[in-house]
Amino acid sequence: MPKISNKGKQMPASPIRKLTPYADRAKQQGKKVYHLNIGQPDIETPEAMINAIKNIDFKVWAYTQSEGNLSYRKKLVEYYNKAGYNISIEDIFVTTGASEAIVIALQTCMDDGDEVIIPEPFYANYNAFAWMSNVTIKPVLSSIETGFALPAISEFEKQITDKTKAIFICNPNNPTGYLYSYEELTELKKLCLKYDLYLFADEAYREFCYDDNKFYSPMHLDGLDENVLIFDSVSKRYSACGARLGCFITKNRKVIETALKFAQARLSPGMVAQIAAEAAVDTPPSYFERVNVEYTERRNMLVESLNKMEGVFCPNPGGAFYVVARFPVDDSEKFCQWMLEEFSYDNQTVMMAPAAGFYSTPGAGRDEIRLAYVLNKEDLANAMICLEKALLEYPGRKVKGESLKAKA
Amino acid sequence: MPKISNKGKQMPASPIRKLTPYADRAKQQGKKVYHLNIGQPDIETPEAMINAIKNIDFKVWAYTQSEGNLSYRKKLVEYYNKAGYNISIEDIFVTTGASEAIVIALQTCMDDGDEVIIPEPFYANYNAFAWMSNVTIKPVLSSIETGFALPAISEFEKQITDKTKAIFICNPNNPTGYLYSYEELTELKKLCLKYDLYLFADEAYREFCYDDNKFYSPMHLDGLDENVLIFDSVSKRYSACGARLGCFITKNRKVIETALKFAQARLSPGMVAQIAAEAAVDTPPSYFERVNVEYTERRNMLVESLNKMEGVFCPNPGGAFYVVARFPVDDSEKFCQWMLEEFSYDNQTVMMAPAAGFYSTPGAGRDEIRLAYVLNKEDLANAMICLEKALLEYPGRKVKGESLKAKA
Repeated sequence: MPKISNKGKQMPASPIRKLTPYADRAKQQGKKVYHLNIGQPDIETPEAMINAIKNIDFKVWAYTQSEGNLSYRKKLVEYYNKAGYNISIEDIFVTTGASEAIVIALQTCMDDGDEVIIPEPFYANYNAFAWMSNVTIKPVLSSIETGFALPAISEFEKQITDKTKAIFICNPNNPTGYLYSYEELTELKKLCLKYDLYLFADEAYREFCYDDNKFYSPMHLDGLDENVLIFDSVSKRYSACGARLGCFITKNRKVIETALKFAQARLSPGMVAQIAAEAAVDTPPSYFERVNVEYTERRNMLVESLNKMEGVFCPNPGGAFYVVARFPVDDSEKFCQWMLEEFSYDNQTVMMAPAAGFYSTPGAGRDEIRLAYVLNKEDLANAMICLEKALLEYPGRKVKGESLKAKA
Repeated sequence: MPKISNKGKQMPASPIRKLTPYADRAKQQGKKVYHLNIGQPDIETPEAMINAIKNIDFKVWAYTQSEGNLSYRKKLVEYYNKAGYNISIEDIFVTTGASEAIVIALQTCMDDGDEVIIPEPFYANYNAFAWMSNVTIKPVLSSIETGFALPAISEFEKQITDKTKAIFICNPNNPTGYLYSYEELTELKKLCLKYDLYLFADEAYREFCYDDNKFYSPMHLDGLDENVLIFDSVSKRYSACGARLGCFITKNRKVIETALKFAQARLSPGMVAQIAAEAAVDTPPSYFERVNVEYTERRNMLVESLNKMEGVFCPNPGGAFYVVARFPVDDSEKFCQWMLEEFSYDNQTVMMAPAAGFYSTPGAGRDEIRLAYVLNKEDLANAMICLEKALLEYPGRKVKGESLKAKA
């Protein structure tokens, strides 16, 4: 029998989806499972977007241009320029989700063995994209104690070698929800200019900033045009994850010309999704205001509930719809699996994403868990009750650093 | 300024799309351009598929499972089992076009520097997918004289090294339209078993076989389950290129489990496209009969017209909707560019794909061109008149191996 490649064998599995078989089994047993493990919001997709799908008017479902429909790209330029990005149509092309934009960026800017520095915890699939591209991720540890703020620039500098080609941030951050400040971005700018590095920013959560915090992008910084690459997606913005539509933005001409060769090879992004997303650009600010009020209330409730549980610590993040909290457990992966396999309260349980999968430093984040507040407040409240009960019952529970089990 | 990677610099540009700027300029000058360069059919997408889009009924445009909607996969299993593939639901997952399936297969089965043998000419983007995956393509030359039939197995054997991991065919073939026979597939089977190789088959054109030729797949061969990987797409089958939906099929459990890790990393294929493609599976045979009659007529007309032109030779292929023809020109790339830049007849011209981009052997196919018969017969007839006139006017014309220009 022909062999699997080492590349395939060692390809990292998604930590967000890998507990799915246990969740499926729990459901087969009749348990209700609250899904806080995945960034699939329950928020309704804007009506204009749904209607655009229903009102399609074509007889041939054709390829679009590899860089995306011209009319959609024009609308995107409008959208980003309202946000102060100051881009033109040549600076942007449409991708199949932000995922594709990231893979293209890695291959456009980096050769085999080159390095990208990413504050950890980071979105787990970056590991997969880097692995597919033969790029090495050098993590810089951010700390739950500071709410996962940008680590000191000196920590980044320690990781820089002649193979370092880029710094990569996700802002607002998945998994931590941390929103980078203008000052933090300015520090990254100085670093990138000093060492001639690209600055990659995944901005899939850009519309979700709370408590009157303003969103800043590296695109707002002067003198960094040749260094900045932005990856975005309509998945979260319009609660349209199933559209699989993102984009790639840079003012660096050579980068975009090279990246377009990768875009051409896969022919084009989806046509109906582009028609719908073009309509979505006119979504009124009131939609986002309503959604942000909803997410803020959920976050407040989640953070408050978590911090009330004995031994749990959860920072209060400024954006996205995730928190990473610390739990008094021996191993959060075991705990999450146990909740699906062994535990139920009132025939209910909760699925969450163990944080270790978001770290690349071995052993880091073993007592942390990512929770996505993508359910309505009632479900979220029930999930929190479940979680609190589970923590009291869990055999691997530790309080004040000590395991009850070990004591017994 | 940070540098572009060598990987990016050397990424091959699409030969199918690279003349686009010249075509755009020709159109700006008011010329009508007949597009025979790209496999974008003018055939209408089945009504059931269009209606499925219009009748979507959801409020949240959500991710689907990474392997695709269960209900769609069930329908696909039905479709392939009607064709005698004898697969079950675990043997198939949904991809973003056949392109994604191919990249995943290359990375699942091959490590850096491993080799795949492909009869050339082959679909140009295979070069790009192999380049992205650090895989080397070893071409085996097929000949226009035999209508691009499978080269002798001894030619394949000459290319086999310890790095060879797979043989890769496209059937019916893009760019040549050649339809492999049962006997040819059986020869490939013996070869793959002898050397323990994967057999990859891109079957995007499987529904388009003419003159009562029957389509055979490696899936129809006994004893090859662990070796065969199939890549397919709804793009051509339902004239739905813009759906960006394909699939990956294999009975090799290890391969599919590994491949799914790549599928998970990019989260999911498009949701609306899957709903539409599920409806499309029930497209009645009469649709394909009608379409195949239309394509047969176009092919007959194209092949006849081409062979009537002085110095042109065009085999009569059994499937797909392409031909590769030999032209009496110095360099088909120059000729194709000249037709867009310099030539017009009755203010019309033709865009075609120079065949050199479909070869990886340097210098091969320089007098060949791929033409896609994706236009209605009237347009096709006009395009043929244009082409005939152009050949007479072209300064780099050669007849009987001699350039008129050189004579002058």
